[in-house]
Amino acid sequence: MNNFVFQNPTRIIFGKDTEAQVGQETAKYAKKVLLHYGGGSIKKTGLYDRVVKSLKEAGIEIFELGGVLPNPRLSLVKEGIRLCREHQIEFILAVGGGSAIDSAKAIAIGVPYEGDVWDFFEYKASPQKSLQVGVVLTIPAAGSEASDSAVITKEDTLDKRGVTHSLLFPVFSIMNPELTFTLPDYQTACGTADIMAHIMERYFTPTRHVDLTDRLCEATLKTMILNVPKALKNPNDYDARAEIMWAGTVAHNNLLGMGRRTDWASHGIEHELSAIYDIAHGAGLAIVFPAWMKYVYKEDIARFAQFAKRVWNVDDNFFDLEEMALKGIESLEAFFTSIGLPTRLSHVNIDASRLEEMAKKATGNDAFTLGFFKKLTSRDVLEIYKLAL
Amino acid sequence: MNNFVFQNPTRIIFGKDTEAQVGQETAKYAKKVLLHYGGGSIKKTGLYDRVVKSLKEAGIEIFELGGVLPNPRLSLVKEGIRLCREHQIEFILAVGGGSAIDSAKAIAIGVPYEGDVWDFFEYKASPQKSLQVGVVLTIPAAGSEASDSAVITKEDTLDKRGVTHSLLFPVFSIMNPELTFTLPDYQTACGTADIMAHIMERYFTPTRHVDLTDRLCEATLKTMILNVPKALKNPNDYDARAEIMWAGTVAHNNLLGMGRRTDWASHGIEHELSAIYDIAHGAGLAIVFPAWMKYVYKEDIARFAQFAKRVWNVDDNFFDLEEMALKGIESLEAFFTSIGLPTRLSHVNIDASRLEEMAKKATGNDAFTLGFFKKLTSRDVLEIYKLAL
Repeated sequence: MNNFVFQNPTRIIFGKDTEAQVGQETAKYAKKVLLHYGGGSIKKTGLYDRVVKSLKEAGIEIFELGGVLPNPRLSLVKEGIRLCREHQIEFILAVGGGSAIDSAKAIAIGVPYEGDVWDFFEYKASPQKSLQVGVVLTIPAAGSEASDSAVITKEDTLDKRGVTHSLLFPVFSIMNPELTFTLPDYQTACGTADIMAHIMERYFTPTRHVDLTDRLCEATLKTMILNVPKALKNPNDYDARAEIMWAGTVAHNNLLGMGRRTDWASHGIEHELSAIYDIAHGAGLAIVFPAWMKYVYKEDIARFAQFAKRVWNVDDNFFDLEEMALKGIESLEAFFTSIGLPTRLSHVNIDASRLEEMAKKATGNDAFTLGFFKKLTSRDVLEIYKLAL
Repeated sequence: MNNFVFQNPTRIIFGKDTEAQVGQETAKYAKKVLLHYGGGSIKKTGLYDRVVKSLKEAGIEIFELGGVLPNPRLSLVKEGIRLCREHQIEFILAVGGGSAIDSAKAIAIGVPYEGDVWDFFEYKASPQKSLQVGVVLTIPAAGSEASDSAVITKEDTLDKRGVTHSLLFPVFSIMNPELTFTLPDYQTACGTADIMAHIMERYFTPTRHVDLTDRLCEATLKTMILNVPKALKNPNDYDARAEIMWAGTVAHNNLLGMGRRTDWASHGIEHELSAIYDIAHGAGLAIVFPAWMKYVYKEDIARFAQFAKRVWNVDDNFFDLEEMALKGIESLEAFFTSIGLPTRLSHVNIDASRLEEMAKKATGNDAFTLGFFKKLTSRDVLEIYKLAL
């Protein structure tokens, strides 16, 4: 086990009707907020009205910025920064999924920074100060509700980049599983791939002697595998929705990665896909992860055999661990297929025309390698894209 | 799943040599500290010298209060409160295990309180303010290093009572598994029982649909079962010690109990034992828990069968879940025995003479019941003590 530091200060308020607490919770931090959200779904479901009512009852002045898109854009972040500065807003309330939250986080670190907020995403600067961010979560997927990171896309160059800093933890996240009853099946499935990917990026590690975190990862994966089909079958199954929502937070609140080197190559490989083709991040992960596995499993067949056995109940075969490893990868792929996700680039109509370009971009033109389970060059990344065709 | 609020702000600094960071970490909060510890072991191992050196290098003025005993005493807490007030000390650094930490927490809430600090333990008052507490952990057991609770014994009446409040989270906990190499085997074993009990108090719940937390509990228990025998066989096995130490924190940082009603009857039943007979808390738990299980398992045989299968690898027997349940309890008892713990009152020379007195005391003379898996009256508690004879 490696040395580590763990701290996660986000206050999670979880359960039925909890969005009614948003006003009193926000009032602990601010009197003026930027209410930040995506499209019309929160208006259609009535969530928008309930949030506004709760904020107003707590005497909070509301400024609004809607229009966050999936793969959230830098231009809207800049608009948010401008609004906050103009009105001296010190708190951003994100209502939505990972896109709204990440956009809110980027605004929050951008406001007190004199330079271009994109500097943080190009590692030219590190955040020193931030506005505070609160969350009402509507989509279990990104884990941003209790993470210290945010991912933004710069639309003119189609660069999708992340920033990680302890200032990015939301101060609170309100999580009512009932708010996810109305999610389209495809969005539930994409969120599932994202959550499972967050766990697997931590699970596939070169670090030895990580029993507890291995088992915590397996526990969270198995919870997803059990509950996602239930939620798809009966979208109003509160208990299944609750398990998925809480698993999505545990998957990405850093606990599962403590003491171990984590990978993140699949995320890097996927980001090029969703940046260029604007597919859902979760769909991209469902395509990339099995291909990544097929390419790298020989680095540690025992770990893949353990994954097969403990997560997918693949039968022991101590004479042929490789067979077990491959059955585990097959099981993951079959699960993704069973919940309606694409697992090949062809399933989302992406052809081979830009694979080399993406492979180069993913590695900064070979300025760096991706991942740690196996360190991948642009040539490796290209092979993984090809395996995913 | 029940509604819940989860927040744990404690900063964990985990790994080799991390105690060297105690000065710089403490300096973030205070210039004057009360260094609070137990007996001579930290002086014998050189830890005391390293901590003092690090604090002095960070320019921190040190006041000292040693002498914390297992089942920490109210009188020493009061001495600590007096010292802090006299010298305007605003930070307490506990170096040791749960006893030193709990004593430090009680001092911390006692200093700003005008009344008797014992009021908090009798629920006559709730803490409104607290000094800050930092920790250098030497014994994985109580989980107090990242918990919001503390347990103190009032020696004149032999009352052992706990207080829980978010003010009681330490601001940081430094955890170096190497510091546990020198623990006597019996102390490692007692710590194990305490850690496993913290998990099982959460696991045995009347709440339905708690998949994720069930599995996280099982993951943490299995980690203990795998690693404790390794640490006993080779006390300098860093990786085994690290798994145990981190499991001890995860067991009791509240994560495993979210969304479910937790029990805590066994802790209540044990507290009477260690208060009156001054046995190690972990030893008491190893005696009480199997007896409690035998008394209550019929409340939910499926849950006990799941425990048997998932934690102890007991074979499925879907025709006779009760058989599985009983094998799980046997497995726990056999494990405790295998690591050198007592599992009967007679093993620690406690006879039947005071069982009724303890059963009455544990339930406040039948003013309340204990636990939620099954709500226990003093009569039930007496039966459990008898099963443990």
